[in-house]
Amino acid sequence: MTLPSLRLKHNADRRIRGGHLWVFSNEVDTAQTPLTELQAGQEVQLETSTGKPLGLVCVSPNNLICARLHSRDSSHVLDKSLLVHRFKVALSLRERLFDKPFYRLVYGESDLLPGLVVDRFGDYFVVQIGTPGMERVREDIVAALVQVFKPQAVLFKNDSGARKLEGLESYVVDAFGAMPELVSLEENGVAFQAPVRDGQKTGWFYDHRANRARLAPYVAGKRVLDLYSYIGGWGVQAAAFGASEVMCVDSSAPALDRVEANAELNGVAEKMVVVEGDVMAALKELKNAGERFDVVIADPPAFIKKRKDIRNGEAAYRRLNEQAMRLLNKDGILVAASCSMHLEEDKLKEALLGASRHLDRNLMITERGFQGADHPLHPAIPETGYIKSLFCRVTPV
Amino acid sequence: MTLPSLRLKHNADRRIRGGHLWVFSNEVDTAQTPLTELQAGQEVQLETSTGKPLGLVCVSPNNLICARLHSRDSSHVLDKSLLVHRFKVALSLRERLFDKPFYRLVYGESDLLPGLVVDRFGDYFVVQIGTPGMERVREDIVAALVQVFKPQAVLFKNDSGARKLEGLESYVVDAFGAMPELVSLEENGVAFQAPVRDGQKTGWFYDHRANRARLAPYVAGKRVLDLYSYIGGWGVQAAAFGASEVMCVDSSAPALDRVEANAELNGVAEKMVVVEGDVMAALKELKNAGERFDVVIADPPAFIKKRKDIRNGEAAYRRLNEQAMRLLNKDGILVAASCSMHLEEDKLKEALLGASRHLDRNLMITERGFQGADHPLHPAIPETGYIKSLFCRVTPV
Repeated sequence: MTLPSLRLKHNADRRIRGGHLWVFSNEVDTAQTPLTELQAGQEVQLETSTGKPLGLVCVSPNNLICARLHSRDSSHVLDKSLLVHRFKVALSLRERLFDKPFYRLVYGESDLLPGLVVDRFGDYFVVQIGTPGMERVREDIVAALVQVFKPQAVLFKNDSGARKLEGLESYVVDAFGAMPELVSLEENGVAFQAPVRDGQKTGWFYDHRANRARLAPYVAGKRVLDLYSYIGGWGVQAAAFGASEVMCVDSSAPALDRVEANAELNGVAEKMVVVEGDVMAALKELKNAGERFDVVIADPPAFIKKRKDIRNGEAAYRRLNEQAMRLLNKDGILVAASCSMHLEEDKLKEALLGASRHLDRNLMITERGFQGADHPLHPAIPETGYIKSLFCRVTPV
Repeated sequence: MTLPSLRLKHNADRRIRGGHLWVFSNEVDTAQTPLTELQAGQEVQLETSTGKPLGLVCVSPNNLICARLHSRDSSHVLDKSLLVHRFKVALSLRERLFDKPFYRLVYGESDLLPGLVVDRFGDYFVVQIGTPGMERVREDIVAALVQVFKPQAVLFKNDSGARKLEGLESYVVDAFGAMPELVSLEENGVAFQAPVRDGQKTGWFYDHRANRARLAPYVAGKRVLDLYSYIGGWGVQAAAFGASEVMCVDSSAPALDRVEANAELNGVAEKMVVVEGDVMAALKELKNAGERFDVVIADPPAFIKKRKDIRNGEAAYRRLNEQAMRLLNKDGILVAASCSMHLEEDKLKEALLGASRHLDRNLMITERGFQGADHPLHPAIPETGYIKSLFCRVTPV
């Protein structure tokens, strides 16, 4: 089987040779190889302007990122066999790093599988597909998972907003077996149940694992506030690590029910207080009521989804963290987290510094955290890094 | 006692109000308050162009950074009482984070004591002074340490190159008690003895503690190479964490003697091989001899000491890491570390990516590490952040 070609313009191969995996539509020699003649998701041979092979890509003909490389060896086509190989390579890293089978197994480009995310919950696998190329081989993905892992169930959680831009429909379906509403997992020795079908993203955020682990020495014996708690990733771990009291605030009643259930799982339900409501409004009320905390965790949903939101988003991070800082006791810890890829760590630092100066406090940063090792960074693709977590000690000047 | 004033030019107070602690000589209104009339190390009241007080600074009249702020409250002069207070605030953070008394107790600007570094080894304290202001109160520093900690010994290790720029002489003397040649410490559960009088800096580098802790899952059962090993901070911990063999390379024979002694302390001497010599030459020889390793740790001394060295230094990091990468087995881990404040993390990433592409390997970054929490970052002073550590998984393409 010979694959069609996608020819790049003169010098447009440099970034690919330099390690990147994406082709932008303006880099293609469309006179030689019109993108319009290719199907969404089709696999083609990428080549230089002089016809030298660069590897295999799947195309998104109507997208700015019009092709993504999955193999530099043109004999390794995207099929079940390659998926099995990539899954095993990805698995060997995770097995080296984690003693239990709860992690992001496949992290897209970083694991050389652009457009594919797989979160593992023991024998349960939640798959997110973001490109037509991966959508085309979705049966192979399931077959490869079945071959390598003999899973109980595989769920397609294909309902992300980004799919629309790729012309992909939104759906959540069992791909293999029957996925239960809740699956069990363990993070940093703390037990959780995550709502994989109805929850946010894959149901759980493994990306902050290492940052949550750092909570332990900061929260022991302390009163903790967890903002945008979702199902208690930070808050329940704080309680399990010895916090004296944890208040979780979220606007979702079902999420707060899960906070309570997860606290129960770990025998810390009596330390847990849940507050349903808008976080900014709750912060105001807590301030007015004279409530104070030793540790406040502010890990909001992405305030910056697109480049054009950067300015407003940065202001939103500043507002949130300043209000959070107001609730701290005299020697307090603020955990300022962000999952906005477009928020630079330096900008978050600036926001925190600005807030601390505005409140006439002294601020030092004791921990700079990023996403865990099951979300490895692809060094050529900055977009693969998005998590930030700064632990700040806030003291009187 | 009224302190003399140091008046800033119009708007030159902005950075200080914004959180910074340094005054540059071109920001001073020298017509009103000539720097030349002040003594090196003298404490003065910093004020705005209209005479509003900003806090207290100690001056370095002949230096580009001509003053450093140690207090925003003008009643808190730099004396034993303020030092005792600052030491207690610094201690409360370290005691919260570390279960044993081995850490950097005072980290200069970040602990609001510009020009002062104190490393603690149990009851032994090594002090480094970098400014005339701190030099002036050195007896108060010792008295404050004695009051708070009742130490066995305090050593002034005042021999850094930076002192010359401040017009300070170089000396190493016992300031209290008698400091032994070697002091004991524990890091990540591994025992060491550090040569505080004759070793590099304070004798030990606490700054990589958290990064060394991350070694554990990567080295278990593996063959490890530790380049620029010094006294075995990385290498002996790798052996203690279960590496099958560790080779330490350093140009200093006394340092390698300490590697062996530290390995002995932890019962891992039989796993340890030491090689005395130039690291780049040793890398070549190991390559020619066909030696391969599962994990290579490259934590060199700062290749970039000054801004003007940036270009050459970046090239040196690239060369070192590329040669190190050549020695990796098929699925290998490279730990690329740097203590150069002037090396940006992105530049280190670029060097690693370039090296991996040149060798036709795939590279992902699994851990991004920085200095430990006993070296907190001052958010207004980027110079307080300098440690980088990138764990890279290097695989065939």
